[in-house]
Amino acid sequence: NKKYTIAVLPGDGIGTEVTPVAVEALRLAGSLEGLDLRFEELPIGGAALDLVGVPLPEETLRKAKQSDAVLLGAVGWPKWDDNPKHLKPITALLQLRAGLEVFSNLRPITVFPQLVDSTYLRKDTAEGVDLMIIRELTGGIYNAHPRGFTTNEQGDEVGFCTESYSASEVDHIARVAFDIAKQRRSKLCSVDKATVLEGSMLWRKRVTAMALEYPEVEVNHLLIDTAAMDLVRHPRQFDTILTGVMFGDILSDLAAMIPGSVGLLPSAALGDSGPGIFEPVHGSAPKHYGKDTVNPLAAVLSAAMLFRYGLKEENAAKRIEKAVSDVLDRGFRTRDIHTPGTTLVGCKRMGEEILRSL
Amino acid sequence: NKKYTIAVLPGDGIGTEVTPVAVEALRLAGSLEGLDLRFEELPIGGAALDLVGVPLPEETLRKAKQSDAVLLGAVGWPKWDDNPKHLKPITALLQLRAGLEVFSNLRPITVFPQLVDSTYLRKDTAEGVDLMIIRELTGGIYNAHPRGFTTNEQGDEVGFCTESYSASEVDHIARVAFDIAKQRRSKLCSVDKATVLEGSMLWRKRVTAMALEYPEVEVNHLLIDTAAMDLVRHPRQFDTILTGVMFGDILSDLAAMIPGSVGLLPSAALGDSGPGIFEPVHGSAPKHYGKDTVNPLAAVLSAAMLFRYGLKEENAAKRIEKAVSDVLDRGFRTRDIHTPGTTLVGCKRMGEEILRSL
Ligand SMILES: CC(C)[C@H](C(=O)O)[C@@H](O)C(=O)O
Ligand SMILES: CC(C)[C@H](C(=O)O)[C@@H](O)C(=O)O
Repeated sequence: NKKYTIAVLPGDGIGTEVTPVAVEALRLAGSLEGLDLRFEELPIGGAALDLVGVPLPEETLRKAKQSDAVLLGAVGWPKWDDNPKHLKPITALLQLRAGLEVFSNLRPITVFPQLVDSTYLRKDTAEGVDLMIIRELTGGIYNAHPRGFTTNEQGDEVGFCTESYSASEVDHIARVAFDIAKQRRSKLCSVDKATVLEGSMLWRKRVTAMALEYPEVEVNHLLIDTAAMDLVRHPRQFDTILTGVMFGDILSDLAAMIPGSVGLLPSAALGDSGPGIFEPVHGSAPKHYGKDTVNPLAAVLSAAMLFRYGLKEENAAKRIEKAVSDVLDRGFRTRDIHTPGTTLVGCKRMGEEILRSL
Repeated sequence: NKKYTIAVLPGDGIGTEVTPVAVEALRLAGSLEGLDLRFEELPIGGAALDLVGVPLPEETLRKAKQSDAVLLGAVGWPKWDDNPKHLKPITALLQLRAGLEVFSNLRPITVFPQLVDSTYLRKDTAEGVDLMIIRELTGGIYNAHPRGFTTNEQGDEVGFCTESYSASEVDHIARVAFDIAKQRRSKLCSVDKATVLEGSMLWRKRVTAMALEYPEVEVNHLLIDTAAMDLVRHPRQFDTILTGVMFGDILSDLAAMIPGSVGLLPSAALGDSGPGIFEPVHGSAPKHYGKDTVNPLAAVLSAAMLFRYGLKEENAAKRIEKAVSDVLDRGFRTRDIHTPGTTLVGCKRMGEEILRSL
């Protein structure tokens, strides 16, 4: 039996509700494929602040590094909102990404045929959408040098931070995107603001150059403002979208409106080697916490991505995805995707039905 | 009779088709209100590059400064796309904004009851939307210092540019937004990325402080990713939105999906004093140029904003807005907003019907 260690970081709020569901799905799908999974639960975010006073304890980072993959829930809780930045829960996320050097963020957006009524768009617009957003994750304006606060000549307080991309950073993430596009429908759309930002101008130049190495991939470039419009009016035109950390944050949340719930969206953050981070796109959702009403499918689909991209166990990934589709066929829906004629269930029950389908 | 001079800058592509329609609407509505309007046509963008080799000729800027208001069409044409930045048509726009010191960009988004079927969202989502985006226009990452290209320690090419906001820049634009919100439904939503960007942290702090001066205005703060989602799922929640230059670019194009066509969206760019710039949100649209099919209503509604915000001639503004509504009641539609049962017309004919309604 192949052995894997999974670091499990439930974090805060509904992270602690959906993560156990994903763990059980991993365990069962893994054992059906003859895999031996060991889970190690570690604190992060507000939970870690409560326990040891920092959002990302050293031990959490060390054990995450030693693991084969990291399953993350969500971080953030209102009681920490006024903390200084280095003591905010979300800082843990930025530190974990940096610590594991996961520079590519994969965010697939798929409209399940069973859920087309959940879309916030028009049904005919959302039908059949199946796209993948590849977001650069550790550079750009998030990882700004220099950044900070200063006083200008007029004695005025200024907050500043530098957007930058280097040729090798662009090449690094673009390579990932071209390779993924090739395995999909071979269409790559690169999104930037090359009319204004120098980082974007370089971005466009490098992507254009790399396209020559991938004659089979059809490449186009969109400005971020146009891309935002096109995700709403013609989302089926997209196959693989490549973009930077800031625009990727906006586009991937926006794209969540196509399936209609962030509760359906998984993500993976990958490096060149070492463990990736697999987490639902939704946050800790304080409003919904503790009611057993949230949707665990984003976490469960993140578990599928963990098998596919983290452990290269494609069969186990497919098992989970099939189980999700089966549960939807059997009519089970959490509150966020509930429509007339389907069966409303809570988070735990949804988890049980996933195991049954598996 | 009150006398005004209007600088008319049709620019490129469909800018030259819609601007004459807006001029005629200004002329007629003005004369009905006893105003004496003088129009002075000036080259900008690709048109200016063709004529004198620069996108914003000195004379255009000088005469624009001397005018009472600037009516702009659109700039940009593919033949200039590979020009160096200072010779690109859109540079004219950035230079004109800087030259006239227009730091606030007003972009109203209204769903006309007659056009609710044109929305890209669900009809029940779009119905009744009436919001105003106030975008900071001359600071932030667009007006970056420092910015440029450099080589890093690894010998790697880097494109960089600095996002910054100062306290007085934020106060300047926030004041405009609070004052406008007060004249509307007294709800202000400020959009930033305060979890990551220093400029946004300062932005949020200053807006929060200014809110104390406006107890009658209900203020909330959203992160840009959430704001993008909320514009698609619950746009009616918004009254006045305040944001920076980059996020405002994205949000206002995205919000165009609510009424369903950029051909309906006007804008105003205003300074503390001096002439404002009034222009449709759409660009030069090379694909649609020369076919007499485009929608002049964005330009005509920009003319209404010119009366309201540029000349403080509210009655003339209302005349134009009433004429637009009347033309829609009479069933005339350009291609972008055409639905079964309405009368398809071209740009010129739409202009004639506006004059008839006036
Ligand atoms: C919490 C925040 C820093 C984070 C980001 O913007 O990267 C989140 O919004 C996300 O998209 O993963
Ligand atoms: C042309 C471009 C520089 C401009 C901007 O982003 O400001 C345009 O997109 C706009 O929104 O007015």
